[in-house]
Amino acid sequence: MKKFYIAKSRRLRSTPYTSRIENQGLTAYTIYNHMLLPASFGNIEKEYFHLKEHVQVWDVAAERQVQITGKDAEKLVQLMTCRNLSKAKVGRCYYIPTIDEEGGMLNDPVALKLSDNKWWLSLADSDIGLYAKGIASGLSLQVEVSEPDVNILAVQGPKSFKLMEKVFGKKINELKFFGFDYYNFKGNKFLIARSGWSKQGGYEIYVENREAGQNLYDELFLAGKEFQVKPGCPNQIERIESALLSSGNDFDSCDNPYECGFDKYIDVDSNINYLGKNALIQIAKKGINRKLMGVKIDLDKIEMTEEKPLQNGKSVVGHLRSAVYSPHLKKVVGIAMINKEYWDKKTPFELEINGKKSKGSICDLPIV
Amino acid sequence: MKKFYIAKSRRLRSTPYTSRIENQGLTAYTIYNHMLLPASFGNIEKEYFHLKEHVQVWDVAAERQVQITGKDAEKLVQLMTCRNLSKAKVGRCYYIPTIDEEGGMLNDPVALKLSDNKWWLSLADSDIGLYAKGIASGLSLQVEVSEPDVNILAVQGPKSFKLMEKVFGKKINELKFFGFDYYNFKGNKFLIARSGWSKQGGYEIYVENREAGQNLYDELFLAGKEFQVKPGCPNQIERIESALLSSGNDFDSCDNPYECGFDKYIDVDSNINYLGKNALIQIAKKGINRKLMGVKIDLDKIEMTEEKPLQNGKSVVGHLRSAVYSPHLKKVVGIAMINKEYWDKKTPFELEINGKKSKGSICDLPIV
Repeated sequence: MKKFYIAKSRRLRSTPYTSRIENQGLTAYTIYNHMLLPASFGNIEKEYFHLKEHVQVWDVAAERQVQITGKDAEKLVQLMTCRNLSKAKVGRCYYIPTIDEEGGMLNDPVALKLSDNKWWLSLADSDIGLYAKGIASGLSLQVEVSEPDVNILAVQGPKSFKLMEKVFGKKINELKFFGFDYYNFKGNKFLIARSGWSKQGGYEIYVENREAGQNLYDELFLAGKEFQVKPGCPNQIERIESALLSSGNDFDSCDNPYECGFDKYIDVDSNINYLGKNALIQIAKKGINRKLMGVKIDLDKIEMTEEKPLQNGKSVVGHLRSAVYSPHLKKVVGIAMINKEYWDKKTPFELEINGKKSKGSICDLPIV
Repeated sequence: MKKFYIAKSRRLRSTPYTSRIENQGLTAYTIYNHMLLPASFGNIEKEYFHLKEHVQVWDVAAERQVQITGKDAEKLVQLMTCRNLSKAKVGRCYYIPTIDEEGGMLNDPVALKLSDNKWWLSLADSDIGLYAKGIASGLSLQVEVSEPDVNILAVQGPKSFKLMEKVFGKKINELKFFGFDYYNFKGNKFLIARSGWSKQGGYEIYVENREAGQNLYDELFLAGKEFQVKPGCPNQIERIESALLSSGNDFDSCDNPYECGFDKYIDVDSNINYLGKNALIQIAKKGINRKLMGVKIDLDKIEMTEEKPLQNGKSVVGHLRSAVYSPHLKKVVGIAMINKEYWDKKTPFELEINGKKSKGSICDLPIV
């Protein structure tokens, strides 16, 4: 697999932590919300094992926030998601599949209710702020839509709890999963959520002051020495095994939330109002013919740059969307859109890459 | 300047030409509309001189199209831009600054009027399709908004005219600047516009059939041998000298179209209806305090990853947004947002990078 450099420019925005991670051995970036998102510090397999055992600090500033404030803020947030937010509470995070009028997936942000009139949508990679602005203008809603300069640091891994307690004090232990609250470090207040894009436990620190965030970054590495802290980033192996879906990789606007397995976040029964509700009601009536599932493939490496068909003879079993070699399972693991007749997981498939066929099997998500 | 790899994934979409350009010596990518956009074949200075003398074929599939069809198509396109499109003709391209309700720049696409009920917006790097969907849903417009699989090939440079005549026949010479029409190659019809992101002349071929596009790509290199054709990409040096603005680099939603010098594309006087019109009327009344201008700096290299202040003593003259070394002018040239009191170009400035100060001067755009 040939490697290519990234050509930097102002358009691919740096973060407050960019110079730090580059000095700490960063080797590869991806681009996410027009921003640099670290992708590797040289060996994602080592990073995978480290993440599952110790603690990592991640520059995930590229998880940009759409801030929606004003009298109609909650109305606008609800219009963009099929999840019922009518009982949403201040201080809680909500995973909200965001759809268009046809029910197609546009993003899957984590929404934070900051107050009755103020929300943040912590985005996957698409300009949901423009969708929000369009709807708000079209309906003349009383809202302001903006992108505040919030630059998230994630602290992930089993030792994240001890590290965060050391830095922010015992009070942080009271935070429940998907809850958020404010905590102090050296006179600065940080919004911290118990969340993050791994299943190894941890926190996301919503940094609103760049300099305070840089000082905190440095402190996390100082205080984290005893916990073997390392810089890291969302890990392809861990996230695929854990079934943390990636917008744009595992689904796009041609897929609906039922096909993505988001059933528990879909409300078609109550009287809430959102764009795409009629489409989802129709889809719910008809049922779906494909859904995202796990796969295991007899390969020791793979590069995914586009969807690949999975076949059984001449029949298409489904389409592979994300895949990576798992050093834990000693196979390639992946996330694929599987056609209904193969949901029983009994049918093997073949994947052809550069004329070579490899055997694979379908499994549930997460992949164990 | 350290270099970093790009971590590929399905989310950073490949184009139909990706394997070809990678085999032709591509070294660096940027990401544009969630897609791979070639950024260099190893030496942008050599590419600059070649572009100004010969002909290049560019994979600019990342210039994605937002397709808007239906009874209200023109109404929706007009709502998104301050340019008066009431006299727009089928077969013509229109550069349309796209703004939000506050008058902030969201994109600067080229709009193609395909028929009375069908438009394409050939995008710079932001999800204007989501803005269009939001407005359409909010106003219940009779439109369909989609992203067709159109993958543009640009043929740029002074010899592009001869190469295109050789491949498509003499009829192509009748095409006027910013006009488009359909032309045949080996039984396939291609929409071709006389346009492109250089000032060296040329065409953009809107490829709607992947395989036909790949065959055309190969033919352009075969037929182009006598014109010294090479693979290329939008060239930072050429585009900055020529003042082809880059959305996200030179401006963003904190800038209004007057500040970008788009006065001739702004209509605040007639009765057309667009979002942000009231904001622009207010801005027009008050006048602006800063605008984009050219700069020349006594440096032999520069890397831009964020806006940099330009100072005269303690006074801020403006902010540098794009810059590159020009082998033609033997200086760094750039595009900067300059404060009003310095528009007379008489005041020199200093730019500080890593503690070293360099002298510079303000000039008009394009930079000669």
